[in-house]
Amino acid sequence: MNDMIELLQSHRSIRKFNSTPVTPEQLDAILGSAQMASTSSNMQAYSVISVTDTTLRQQLAVLAGNQAYVSECPLFLVWCADLHRFAQAVRQHADTPVTGNAENFLVATVDAALAAQNAAVAAESLGLGVVYIGGIRNNPAEVSQLLGLPQLVYPVFGMCIGMPDQEPLHRPRLPRKAVYHENRYTEARDAIESYDETVRDYMKERTGSKVDTTWTKEMAAKATRPRQHMKAFLRGQGFEIE
Amino acid sequence: MNDMIELLQSHRSIRKFNSTPVTPEQLDAILGSAQMASTSSNMQAYSVISVTDTTLRQQLAVLAGNQAYVSECPLFLVWCADLHRFAQAVRQHADTPVTGNAENFLVATVDAALAAQNAAVAAESLGLGVVYIGGIRNNPAEVSQLLGLPQLVYPVFGMCIGMPDQEPLHRPRLPRKAVYHENRYTEARDAIESYDETVRDYMKERTGSKVDTTWTKEMAAKATRPRQHMKAFLRGQGFEIE
Repeated sequence: MNDMIELLQSHRSIRKFNSTPVTPEQLDAILGSAQMASTSSNMQAYSVISVTDTTLRQQLAVLAGNQAYVSECPLFLVWCADLHRFAQAVRQHADTPVTGNAENFLVATVDAALAAQNAAVAAESLGLGVVYIGGIRNNPAEVSQLLGLPQLVYPVFGMCIGMPDQEPLHRPRLPRKAVYHENRYTEARDAIESYDETVRDYMKERTGSKVDTTWTKEMAAKATRPRQHMKAFLRGQGFEIE
Repeated sequence: MNDMIELLQSHRSIRKFNSTPVTPEQLDAILGSAQMASTSSNMQAYSVISVTDTTLRQQLAVLAGNQAYVSECPLFLVWCADLHRFAQAVRQHADTPVTGNAENFLVATVDAALAAQNAAVAAESLGLGVVYIGGIRNNPAEVSQLLGLPQLVYPVFGMCIGMPDQEPLHRPRLPRKAVYHENRYTEARDAIESYDETVRDYMKERTGSKVDTTWTKEMAAKATRPRQHMKAFLRGQGFEIE
């Protein structure tokens, strides 16, 4: 339909990068795009930390589950939900308590995600590749300590950025019908069944027929690896979301 | 730097639309772009509901705080965090319990936000304007009931889309220094002070000098209107995030 929509629809995560650095001009374009994303009531309740220190990068790579690309990628950003800045602003004028309750937690998490997605799109428009790193939540307390995060700030995810050194397939998504509804939420079991076959074909193609799985099987496997420490960690950072 | 970065950086929320409908082709491009956003472990833990029914639209407009543009905009989408589909997929293969714990709540909320932001960018690339509607969380239980949301699904925000019938100013964002850090989280009080003056000037320009305020003052005012019902609502939807 236009170049932008083509760009958005051709996304795939990149986990292997060549050594071309991300230039200061590119970083500026990426951050400037992130900053112009929508934000709830102009709270801008997020922060982004670029990890340039080699030792720190290696520590984060280990904490994120030994993902080599976290230490090797040209640019590594940690996107944080940040109510600390908001709380400080409030304190200048009022005694109103600012807590990391469910609503505030949600707002800050969404603000971080909207900014990050703009950054990802900006990077891709420059020919760079990106991958989100949820593994930053494997050891969130250690990550928060290394990055010096104050109370009411937590790392939502990391993001590797750099020039792609691989050409991965595009991972097919659920049929439209499974995620899109009109007026009322509807079940779409047939769409899930058909997607199971799509994922089976995709995984065979990607692995040279070594892996035979489906979407629902992958989800069942995923469910056995929950990050159950997040509640305790978030409480420690001041998010009393319960 | 390029047209896409220019597009990302020229975002402003649109709250007044002309009557030009969003075409099926535009909707397809918007939804297709949303679907290709990154998603945690391919969970695609979100759903989007287009509200086309006039009565339902008016009900939602009232519930969202009497925002007329919710009923008047050509296209209104409700973006939901959705673990229901994931739970169903898991149940096909295993007895592993799927709960709306903090991690799953976070993943589904982020998945909804990434998809929505791609939708917003796609819409803007087509010349359409958008505004996120956090007010959908003013009365989330009523909204969930009207949309028939099952357990483990909740409305994160709404989104109005249509042809702009206004030319609002671009709202200036925090100085880079306030949101961007290298290696370690740092305070930037001087940046906040300077932004307070930027917001004062912006608000004067926007209101013909009728409003004299600053960012920190706006945040203090915002803090007096917390949505404290979210915890109880989320628990009712099966999100035991505590």
